[in-house]
Order: sequence, then C-alpha cells, then structure tokens
Amino acid sequence: MRPSFVEQLGSRVLEGAAPACVGIDPRPEQLPNQLLPSASVPERLTAFCAEILPVLAETVPAVKPNIAFFEAHGPAGFGAYAEVCRQARDLGLLVVGDIKRGDIGSTAEAYASYHGEIADAVTLHPYLGRDALEPFLQRAGVQGLGLFILVRTSNPGADLFQSLILQDGARVVDEVARAVDHWGEDTVDIHGFSSVGAVVGATRPEEIGELRARMPRAWFLLPGVGAQGGSVEPLKAAVDGRGLGALATSSRGVTACFDPDASDWLDQVRTAAGSFAEQARALVPKD
Amino acid sequence: MRPSFVEQLGSRVLEGAAPACVGIDPRPEQLPNQLLPSASVPERLTAFCAEILPVLAETVPAVKPNIAFFEAHGPAGFGAYAEVCRQARDLGLLVVGDIKRGDIGSTAEAYASYHGEIADAVTLHPYLGRDALEPFLQRAGVQGLGLFILVRTSNPGADLFQSLILQDGARVVDEVARAVDHWGEDTVDIHGFSSVGAVVGATRPEEIGELRARMPRAWFLLPGVGAQGGSVEPLKAAVDGRGLGALATSSRGVTACFDPDASDWLDQVRTAAGSFAEQARALVPKD
Repeated sequence: MRPSFVEQLGSRVLEGAAPACVGIDPRPEQLPNQLLPSASVPERLTAFCAEILPVLAETVPAVKPNIAFFEAHGPAGFGAYAEVCRQARDLGLLVVGDIKRGDIGSTAEAYASYHGEIADAVTLHPYLGRDALEPFLQRAGVQGLGLFILVRTSNPGADLFQSLILQDGARVVDEVARAVDHWGEDTVDIHGFSSVGAVVGATRPEEIGELRARMPRAWFLLPGVGAQGGSVEPLKAAVDGRGLGALATSSRGVTACFDPDASDWLDQVRTAAGSFAEQARALVPKD
Repeated sequence: MRPSFVEQLGSRVLEGAAPACVGIDPRPEQLPNQLLPSASVPERLTAFCAEILPVLAETVPAVKPNIAFFEAHGPAGFGAYAEVCRQARDLGLLVVGDIKRGDIGSTAEAYASYHGEIADAVTLHPYLGRDALEPFLQRAGVQGLGLFILVRTSNPGADLFQSLILQDGARVVDEVARAVDHWGEDTVDIHGFSSVGAVVGATRPEEIGELRARMPRAWFLLPGVGAQGGSVEPLKAAVDGRGLGALATSSRGVTACFDPDASDWLDQVRTAAGSFAEQARALVPKD
C-alpha cells in the first residue's frame, strides 16, 4: 500500500514543503478574460485549472477543489472537477476533494466509491453520525483516504448549532471533536496523525488550541486564511513541535487574486501562491 | 409566479393524490438485466428511469432521485441525474432532488444556482447554520423552491449528535426543528405550510408527533417506509385534519422490488408503486 494521505502530507512538510493548501473555487466572472473567452464555462474552468495547477505544484503540496463551483455548471462542470483532480495528481499534488457530502449507509457507499477514488482526501458532514461515514472510514483504513470532518466551520452562522451548550457544559462542536478523535484511532500514521482530520475555521483562532487538545491526532484543515487578510500566526496553536498538524488553506486569495483583464494573471497567481506558502511555512519551526 | 412546491404538493393531495414520493436510488446490480445489458452504467440508469417515470407519474405526485447513485458513475452519471429530473418534470411529477448539500455562503450559492433550477425541492444539511442555507432560503421565497432540512435521520447512528441533550433538557434535533420552523415563517402557502420542510426518519415513529408540534408549518419528508416493511400508520401523527404535512417516501421497495432477471419487472414496479400509494393514501382522512 502506498502511504496514506496524511503520511504523505506529513512527510512532505518534514521535507520542507509549506503546510499550505490552495483552494480552487473558480467563479466564471473571476476567470481571466483572455482564456478561451468564447468557450463554455466548463471548458474555461478546465483551461484555467490546467494553467494554474503546474504553478501550484511548484509551490504547495496540496490543492482543494470545491466541487460546488464545478457542478454548478452541470454534467460538463462535474467532468471538469474530475479532470482537475486527475491533472493535479498527475502533477504530484495531493488532492483534497471539497465535497462536503453526508448521507446514510448505502448512499454514503455510493459517494465514497467515486470520490474516494478520484481524490486523496475528502471533506464530510458529521450530522448523521458514524454509520453514515463508515464507507469513508473504511477507505481511510484500507487505502489511506484522508477525511476532514466538518467540526467547526468558518462562516458567521456557525454558532447556531455548533455552539449549543450540552448538559455537561461542553458544546456540540466538542462532541463532534471527540468523535473525530475516536474515529481516527485505528489509522495513526508513522508521524502520529490519523487519517481522520477536522475542518476547523481559521477565522476562530481562539478555539484552535482547545480543539487541538480534544483531537491530538487529527490534521486540521484550516480554511479562511488569506482572502480575509488573516495571518497564519494564530494557527500555530494547531501544530506540534515539528510543525505538523495544520494545513492552512487559501482560496480566493490565490486563485482569484488578479483582475480578470490582467494579461499577467498567471504571474500574479504564482506570486500570491508563493507568498501564501511563505506565510504557511511560518507554522513550521526553523531548525 | 407559479405555485410553490409545497402549494402544488398540498393541492395535489387535496385533489386525491397519495401523499407519496418514490425514491430513485438505482444501483447497477439492481437494474433489469434485459435493459441495455451492454451499455454503460449511466446509459442504463437513464434508460431505467425513462421506463419507470411514466409509470410513477400515473401513481404518485413526486419522485426523489438521490444524486449519489448517479454521480457515483462520474460526469455521465451526473448527466443522467439531470436528465431524470428533466423527464420527471416533463411528466408532471414534482422532483425532490435528494442532494444533501451544505456549504458556506458563496459555495452554497453555487449549489443553489444549479440544483435550485433543475429540481422543485432539495434536501440540505443544517450543521453550518442559517447563512449556509441562505441562497436556498432566498429561492424558497422568490421561486417557491421546496427545502427539506435534515432534522432527524433514519439511520442507526443518528442519535450520536442529533440526540445530544442540551442544558435546557432539549435535544440538538429539537433546536434544529425550532430553526426550521423559524426559517419557514415567511413562506407559508395557501394551505398553511411553509417552503421549509424537514427530513424526519420514518423509522422513529415515536418522535414524529413531538417534532410536528415543534414544526407546525413544515412538510415532513419521511424516508424509510416500505423497504423495511414499515407501515405508514405511525406517520399519521405528522398529518393535519386534511391529510396534509407528511410525504411518505419509499425507494427500494418500489424501484428495486423485482428480480433483475424478471421480464415483467416494469409491471412489478407498477404494482409496488400502486400498493405504496394506497398505503400512503391511508394518511388522508376519508370524506
């Protein structure tokens, strides 16, 4: 068996890669205007990704295409998502499929049978409980698929259910964190991390340390860095002494950093990706 | 504006339609063997649905294709889902897109822009809170899109998070129910029901009445009828005096009721759909 997603990620960071993941959320109005201006949106999405992926592969170890921005354009858009995953892996990038799926038993198996093959890791909803995640957990154990369970999200309304206070004073989010830690105990890699990670909104730095204590073995996928001008400094609470455990994520700050009319848009992406990677590298202690 | 999804559903039931929805969750190994045996899976899915939809249109007012069983077969499978939605609507069926999506703001907009157009209603995850549902809620108000929020699911592990007890003695599921009721207050139709409904597992009859009290304006989508041999009797707690408010759903019990080798498989689907519709009609008081 080839190393699991988390093992590969950990090894790359230990070898000097930035713990950085670029989110690919392409909106049609933010694509470079010079790129196939008269083609269909799915064709333009594919062309855009084909341009940026080699640039990203020089700079970061992982990308996170969000399938919503592809399937919004129908079957051909969905095909563009599959193509992005394929091209990214061909370039040696680890692919986190940001699918946020969640359904019961046999339906979860249908999702897992596809998305567990075309990406190295996926994001998932916790609300239905463990059996709804079982087909993904099984692939985490057997083929090293990485899972990032939505624990604490970065949106303004996240508190509504996630911060409900339980009888014992803990919050719902704490119970989800406890479950994530438990679900990951059989898939711990050589670096001490499990294949079951957590999405933790980087917009809530005060909580990161607390959630780390509840999920000591989980990689945190931390979206919300960059676009809002946030620094990665508060994310240091999520990494261990080797700089492992936090995958900082920036989406629009890198892949929509340019004016659509700019002729040097790809250079701008290269610069933004490099700058984001440098920021993220601050999470890793210097020798 | 044409009537909202819930208004159409309510009117059809008042005119004599069964409050029944057939789930379309096609698994390749359960398709009729005589149907395009050498074609691709997506082609077989489309052919299967093209055969059953006219039969279902004679019998029930609504169908619920689950996108997982289509996208499991890649872009062409996703295309088969879009095609099923289109054909079903052409036949006059109301289409509940069982997509169970849930993502933050602008990503939710991407999902809503597509799925809110090709189906009459959709299923959604609540965990991220209201702002993550806003693009769907907006379409509920503007174009009458029906929403079924996952409140209480029918799977064995549903209790893990849904039944956590809060400080005030209520459960998480009760808070989600309260939010669903609140979110629906601006979209109440002529029958007194809102466009924001709830998925409530029909496998938990003891809870149905309690959740009805918390969500007096919500249509309940009640999966889990039929395949497990469950009767619709306990679902009576979900309907009002006119028989409105509960949409009983059966999937495998209708669309996978036959042996794949059977030559009369479509007749078997017709019989099973008719029998399920009769069962569901018991929810509506006789004049």
